[in-house]
Amino acid sequence: MRNGERGIQQVRIAITMGDPSGVGPEIIVGAIAELMPYARERGVRFVILGSHEAHRRAVDLLGAEDIAVVVADGTPEASWPEVAFLPTGRENRPIAFGEISAEAGQFAYAAVARAVELALAGDVAAICTAPLNKEALNLAGHGFAGHTDMLAHLTGAKDPVMMLAHGRLRVSHVTTHIALADVPRRMTPERIRRVVELTEEALERLGIARPRIAIAALNPHAGEGGLFGREDIEVTQPLVAAMRDEGHDVYGPISGDTVFVKLHANQYDAVVAQYHDQGHIPVKLLGFAIDGATGEWTSLKGVNVTLGLPILRASVDHGTAFDIAGKGIARCSSMVEAIEFAVRLAEPVGRDASPGKMKQPSAAMERK
Amino acid sequence: MRNGERGIQQVRIAITMGDPSGVGPEIIVGAIAELMPYARERGVRFVILGSHEAHRRAVDLLGAEDIAVVVADGTPEASWPEVAFLPTGRENRPIAFGEISAEAGQFAYAAVARAVELALAGDVAAICTAPLNKEALNLAGHGFAGHTDMLAHLTGAKDPVMMLAHGRLRVSHVTTHIALADVPRRMTPERIRRVVELTEEALERLGIARPRIAIAALNPHAGEGGLFGREDIEVTQPLVAAMRDEGHDVYGPISGDTVFVKLHANQYDAVVAQYHDQGHIPVKLLGFAIDGATGEWTSLKGVNVTLGLPILRASVDHGTAFDIAGKGIARCSSMVEAIEFAVRLAEPVGRDASPGKMKQPSAAMERK
Repeated sequence: MRNGERGIQQVRIAITMGDPSGVGPEIIVGAIAELMPYARERGVRFVILGSHEAHRRAVDLLGAEDIAVVVADGTPEASWPEVAFLPTGRENRPIAFGEISAEAGQFAYAAVARAVELALAGDVAAICTAPLNKEALNLAGHGFAGHTDMLAHLTGAKDPVMMLAHGRLRVSHVTTHIALADVPRRMTPERIRRVVELTEEALERLGIARPRIAIAALNPHAGEGGLFGREDIEVTQPLVAAMRDEGHDVYGPISGDTVFVKLHANQYDAVVAQYHDQGHIPVKLLGFAIDGATGEWTSLKGVNVTLGLPILRASVDHGTAFDIAGKGIARCSSMVEAIEFAVRLAEPVGRDASPGKMKQPSAAMERK
Repeated sequence: MRNGERGIQQVRIAITMGDPSGVGPEIIVGAIAELMPYARERGVRFVILGSHEAHRRAVDLLGAEDIAVVVADGTPEASWPEVAFLPTGRENRPIAFGEISAEAGQFAYAAVARAVELALAGDVAAICTAPLNKEALNLAGHGFAGHTDMLAHLTGAKDPVMMLAHGRLRVSHVTTHIALADVPRRMTPERIRRVVELTEEALERLGIARPRIAIAALNPHAGEGGLFGREDIEVTQPLVAAMRDEGHDVYGPISGDTVFVKLHANQYDAVVAQYHDQGHIPVKLLGFAIDGATGEWTSLKGVNVTLGLPILRASVDHGTAFDIAGKGIARCSSMVEAIEFAVRLAEPVGRDASPGKMKQPSAAMERK
């Protein structure tokens, strides 16, 4: 299914534009321009899916060279240029920046749907997604809560896992978009085991031979011996004991307030967080920055990876940023990071290389 | 009660040794040595309370000059030297490092109890506490869960609030040491209001004239319009509206995963976190560091401030570190920060100075 068999010269990554009214088109053009030397060196090729009109406009906006060549749907992937463009709808009129519309939502949906088909057929090794707008998606008749929902539906996958990654911080989530009050009962041994195993698999693809995974505690100080909350003792402790017996290099429950300091210091390769904010706060604190005076985001680093799908998918970890779309000021660093992450997950050497080799960041990653 | 009336030349800070078997004695000696130029410049004086034997040993360990002069209990504070030492028990035998004992627990308890008396009598302006060991405390017959419990009991205060502070990150907590499952029902408008008001008061003492306080959401994305959890809509939204009408500069509910990025960027002066890990994760991630290879903590910065007591109290934000006690390698940076924070809370200029003046970090703070 993944085109690992083709060797390093043939990894193609699909990049979906997301909502064409947002910053998607421009961060894709910026990221491709930045990544081409790295991509050529590694034999990585791209296909961008979305509105070609929006893409052209982004190229003009950034004064970039347009190296993406439109290909007709249905032609074999092998015949595509190194950067192909696959339009995913009819261009009726220029789509306005920063406006919610059914037309934009339809482009966003169609790009992901087609990219999933390409991935399932083995024509692309992984998908990188630019942000979409949920409301526009729904206006177009696609009632999904977001990418993860849509991808689960399109691939028939159940129970996917969200991993956030920025630098050394790699954090997978037991739960994400549910009320905090519902978190304790969703913290089952089956679910935590699945999150640990999918995280291990992803890290192995990144070239880490024996990933060290820490499971964050649900309660403060892991419940301090049962004084405040028994879930860490009753659910996590026996699971960790069982998984260590099976040979997993897993630790926990580790107090949530220090586990990310330890992850950052390379005591672990990833952390399993029990709920959304527990995992998102540390990754965004180190990856995001804002101009305090203007309120504008000045850094939006970090990758959102969906584990547990039959395809590989990475995403930027920010939204459509309608307020700055079309101004040419959106930073493409998160898209660069997402594409690099997807490449590292997808490259066939990921699985077989010595851990030392793949742990080295690429030249492009070192620039940041 | 606080000795603000005496003017800047007379602020005295009590420093309690905590458990003499831990790193308390040595981080106090280290911090005092580092802070004396700053203290003399500002007219700040100290009294250390605990085991004098343990203090002497710490002085020898660090090869420091012992500038603390033992004073007899009962002599008037005005007659004390700039650094006074008040022994809080009979020295029967040298207390071993890293051992839990009733004797050590008794020293720790007595130091805090005496410091509280001094604070309530106005002899000291604030208390800085070194870490204690709960088990030793209990062995000595003092059944408290920790400092906060003990201070609430000794001062008759109810419902105190924990604020963590490190650099720009100042975070007060609606709840702390309770099970995560109990958090939603403890998030009442009365409690959040109290936390906001105590935080405002503390920031005003630090010289911030009109503190901007953000209330972190309980649920991810503040519940996304009620899709996952209604507490942020039903509790926080109306409270913020009411408090803004009353003139408070308060914001929220703000999504937990970005509110600390915004705090760090100076969009707010403090954040009110709903639960322990939400507030502790960001402060410790930026303040703590660990050597990944040895597992030894290389940085433990951050101050723990108890609000809502009739006295001012700041503390280091780490434990007794029995494993490294007596080796002379414990870093005193958190104690330095805690003392400086206590001084800034206690100084009479704190309330009246122009905001710009007190916002400047001291020379000692800039060194770090």
